[in-house]
This record gives sequence, C-alpha cells and structure tokens, in this order.
Amino acid sequence: MSAPRDIETHTVSFVELADLLRRIFLRHGTSEDVAQVLSQNCASAQRDGSHSHGIFRIPGYLSSLASGWVDGKAVPVIEDAGAAFIRVDAANGFAQPALAAATPLLIEKVKSAGIAVLAIRSSHHFAALWPDVEPFAAQGLVALSVVNSMTCVVPHGAQRPLFGTNPIAFAAPRAGGDPIVFDLATSAIANGDVQIAARAGRTLPAGMGVDRAGEPTQDPKAILDGGALLPFGGYKGSALSMMVELLAAGLTGGNFSFEFDWSGHPGAQTPWTGQLLIVIDPDKGSGQHFAERSEELVRQMHGVGQERMPGDRRYKERAKSLAQGIEISQAEWANLQALVR
Amino acid sequence: MSAPRDIETHTVSFVELADLLRRIFLRHGTSEDVAQVLSQNCASAQRDGSHSHGIFRIPGYLSSLASGWVDGKAVPVIEDAGAAFIRVDAANGFAQPALAAATPLLIEKVKSAGIAVLAIRSSHHFAALWPDVEPFAAQGLVALSVVNSMTCVVPHGAQRPLFGTNPIAFAAPRAGGDPIVFDLATSAIANGDVQIAARAGRTLPAGMGVDRAGEPTQDPKAILDGGALLPFGGYKGSALSMMVELLAAGLTGGNFSFEFDWSGHPGAQTPWTGQLLIVIDPDKGSGQHFAERSEELVRQMHGVGQERMPGDRRYKERAKSLAQGIEISQAEWANLQALVR
Repeated sequence: MSAPRDIETHTVSFVELADLLRRIFLRHGTSEDVAQVLSQNCASAQRDGSHSHGIFRIPGYLSSLASGWVDGKAVPVIEDAGAAFIRVDAANGFAQPALAAATPLLIEKVKSAGIAVLAIRSSHHFAALWPDVEPFAAQGLVALSVVNSMTCVVPHGAQRPLFGTNPIAFAAPRAGGDPIVFDLATSAIANGDVQIAARAGRTLPAGMGVDRAGEPTQDPKAILDGGALLPFGGYKGSALSMMVELLAAGLTGGNFSFEFDWSGHPGAQTPWTGQLLIVIDPDKGSGQHFAERSEELVRQMHGVGQERMPGDRRYKERAKSLAQGIEISQAEWANLQALVR
Repeated sequence: MSAPRDIETHTVSFVELADLLRRIFLRHGTSEDVAQVLSQNCASAQRDGSHSHGIFRIPGYLSSLASGWVDGKAVPVIEDAGAAFIRVDAANGFAQPALAAATPLLIEKVKSAGIAVLAIRSSHHFAALWPDVEPFAAQGLVALSVVNSMTCVVPHGAQRPLFGTNPIAFAAPRAGGDPIVFDLATSAIANGDVQIAARAGRTLPAGMGVDRAGEPTQDPKAILDGGALLPFGGYKGSALSMMVELLAAGLTGGNFSFEFDWSGHPGAQTPWTGQLLIVIDPDKGSGQHFAERSEELVRQMHGVGQERMPGDRRYKERAKSLAQGIEISQAEWANLQALVR
C-alpha cells in the first residue's frame, strides 16, 4: 500500500525516515539507544508496507511517553538464568531495546545449547512482531515469539474480553530466498487494522468483533468504543491466545493483558506486559541442511498453487521502498517534521 | 461420549483395557516396550473420551504393522546434540516409545538449561498429541509439541493438498487443578473426526473440506474419497500448519507430510514423519510461582464467562472412567478380544 494517487506525497529514503523518527523519539524523552532501536523498527514497518505498525504508531508512542507510563530511558537488566535461559527485566521500558540488548547472549546460547529462550518482563511492545524474529532467520536460526498486549479479545465461549491480540511470529531461513516469516494476531483482526478501518470509514468483515453490548458488529468504531475483538478460528485461536498469555506473561513474570492499570496515566497506549522468544539452531537437528529443506517445502507449496509465501508481500514492498523510496503523504510528513521542532 | 444407550455395552477398567491392548500389540508384532507405551496411550484416549484416538485406531495400527510399513520392534537411538538439544532416530518405529526413551534425559536438560528441545525423526505418530505433553505439565513443566502427518490439507490460497493435519499441543501446570492442556489440529477438522462422521453417516459443518474436484463439501465420505481438508482459520491456520512442517519435519530430519510413499505397503496407515517437543522449566522464568500465575489466568477466564478450560472435558471423562469404568460396546469388545486369539 502506498498513499492514494490523489494525495500529494513526499518520498523519503529508509535512512532519512529512520533518522527523522530517531530524532522524534529523542526529542520526546527516550535515550539514544531506545531512539535508535524504535526508529529502525518503525521505519522498517513503514518501508515494508506494514502501515498499521509504521509512522501511524508515532502519536501513540509519544502520547505514552508524555504520560509517564513508559520509561523511554529504561536500561534493560539481563539475567543469565541457565545454559539456555535468559531473563530480561525491561524495567518498564520498551521490549525492542531489551531484545536488542540480550540478542548477543541469546545467539551465543542458541549456538552452544541448540535452543534458548528469552523471557522479557515489564516491557512495552507497541510494534509489529515480525521484526523481532526475522533477523534470527537471516542468520540461519529458527525463531518463535509471542507477546501479550491488552484486554480486547473475548475468549471463545466467554462473554467479556480478557485476552490481548496476542500475536505469534515465526521465522525460518530458506536456501533460495528471503526467510519465511509470519506474524499473526490470535485475534480475528489486529487492533491497528481496526483503527485504520475506523479512520478510513470502512466496514469490517463479519466475525471480527462485538460492540459494547457484546453483540456482533462490523463497525470498527463500535469495536473501539467499548466493544471487543474475537479470536481467529474459534476455540482454536482462543486456545492459542491463552497460550500466549501463559508464555509471554505467566512465564516471564510480566503482566497478563488484563493486569495493568494505566488509568493514572492519561494518554498511555503501550501495553505493559511481557514477551517470550524461543530460538533454535536448526543445524543441530537434522543432519541435513535445514534451509535446503525449507526451500523444498516452499517449492512444493508453490507446486500446489500457493503463490505467496508468508512474508512475501513485505519483501516486495521493501524492495520497492529501497529502490524508489518510501512514499508518505505530505500531511503525514509535515506532522512528523513538526514533532522535532 | 459413551456408547449410545440402546447398544449393549461392556464396562472395563483402565488397567484391564490397557492390558488387553498391550497383548494385542504384542500379538501383532511389537516389542514389549512398544506394546506397553502404545497400549497406555490408546487406553488413555479411550478413558478420556478422545474416541477418535482410542480403540478406534487399533485396526489402523495393526494394518500398518502387518504391512511391514512400520517397525513395531524398532529401538529408538538417542543422540545428545547439545546442552538443550536431543535428537532421536525413531528408526521407523512409533514416536511415543521414542519420546518415552528420551524423556529422562529431556527432563534433566530442561531442569539444568531451562529449556530443551527433542527432535524425533523417522517416527510414526498415529495417536492424540495431548498425551505427549500433559505428563510434563503434571511435573510442573511447560510443554509444546508439533507433529506432521500426511498430505490431506490444502494450504490457504492453494488448489491441491500438501500439509498434514499437523496438530499443535500445549500443556502448562496450574496450582488449583489439573494442567491446562490443548491439542488442536491445524486443519479445520481432525482426520479421525472425519472418519467417525463418515462411519456415522453425519454431515460436517461448512468450511471443513473439499471433494476430489477441489469443491467445498460437507460430506465426510467425499473428503475421504480423494478430497481434502482445509486449514482452520484461513491463512493463519495455514501458516501454523506450515510451521509444523518446518519444525516437525524440516528441523528434525523427518519426512514432510508429502514425502513418504507407502504405496509398496498396502494397508499402511501410520504417517512416517517427525515430531518436535519443546519443554520449558517455568520456574527459571518469572521469580514468581508459574502455577499460581496460570491459576490466576484460569480464574479470570472463568470470571469473563469461559466455563470450560482446554482439557476439562477429558478430565471429566477420565474421572468418570476411573470411577465407573470405561464403557465399550459389546461388538467393539468382542472385536478386541478376537485380536488376541
């Protein structure tokens, strides 16, 4: 997706966008480290056409920072808990800098033990989840991550919301191309997409959510105004969402999606929960070259008619953005510029 | 589910049923070890009301054994691949004895490293997946397992089947009750349930499968007769099914669901693939007691109106079976008896 044709656009390079975002974060109270990590993350989403996690998110980040809800200067504390277990206390900061700080030790453990887990607690995750796993696959590793968010999903068979959108992301290398990467909300739709539909005045497909009375609705505004989302795939998606709560919060020591109370921080938008990553060295597994095996699976998927692999749309948008620049509407660009003045 | 009221039934204890099944397996070419593991597994499914994986499966097991497709006397070879990585070559035998053989080393690694992975290859899995994870949760550990099966699911956006039903099972301890355990096929319906519906002459709900022409059908016989299943939850379930192929086969060195050729073994029914288990020691994670945290999640799920937790139906059936015995139709009981003569 690029900006509609009838809107005046500004074209920026990835480096230019990331640098502007870095200065915005710095200007609004983050440390240099945090600004660096979050700006790369957010610019990557914009570059890859993940618009609900691109610059669209900046106001939410800044609003949360201004409210004092999240600590933009938090320094994550890494705890070596075992040959294959790392805990990180994100200290009420963002999850991505915690992950970045722990990644060298995580990779060391994975290469040595064959698998390792990173349990991040007291963290705010307000971004897409695929940027957290894709870099591991780019290094030949297999990565799985889950993060819980904030109460907005009604468990299957329940009447009121409890779970977050609770995404699951997975990345695996392949010999013949970019890594296979998916990032899926366990809700029927992601919160960001509901917000984008509401802003655009679009109706949602059936089965995505309920209104404040618990009745099914296709109006994104009714979902956002006291309503809630449904899990994808009925009881199965609901079970997976529960698993995400248990892994990302129960196991890390972070908050469940229903546990944090931001009412004392008007403007807070970033969920204060936890995140779990599991990374595996596939070369310890098979005696065969994993990336060749995953390439064979892709070949067969193409053979039965699945044209697009998970991640392909992002890679296509990425290539286009890197070649032609990232198109942003003039209004959005002006808004971003105003944030560093 | 017990046998319908108008059918004469025989009531057996769990021990009695497991012992009969053990003798059946022994009589049909398995080793004592294999007979012991498979009979416990199959009797547990019957005890817990998982009828599609109970004695219903016995003819399939015996047919596969008779065909020479699976080695009922295989001795699994355990390879210690790292501080947190175990490979097992099931040597063309069943997956459950391979898991049983590796479990002591797996638990030792989990307790020491915090997480460990078990990669089983060249294995036949013809049972439910929850029995593989529940015992870890009963010991206070968190377990996740995936197993791929045989081509019968059309990837989302494809025209022809490629994936197996590829279940994901998860188990976590809780302080106030039996472990939270789910076992979900990433297909819209499990193969066993299609077979049971076909046998019972029942129609399936919409969206479960396609006929041999690739057209949607609600007739279970049309699905079994050259048709195929669909993934649950559209592209998301399909992505998860792909992940199962990559983890259970790609990473273990087992066959993908589409790779084995049993045409030289008429009667073969057990998929020859691989299985992955990831087990985590949650007490390394949070500094809080995990089982208390999962109990809190269950309490909140009840609070929003979800009455039944994943696994509850099985525990209820189990309690009833252990108190009153397992009811089996006289015909089924006679069939089983005949298999040891």
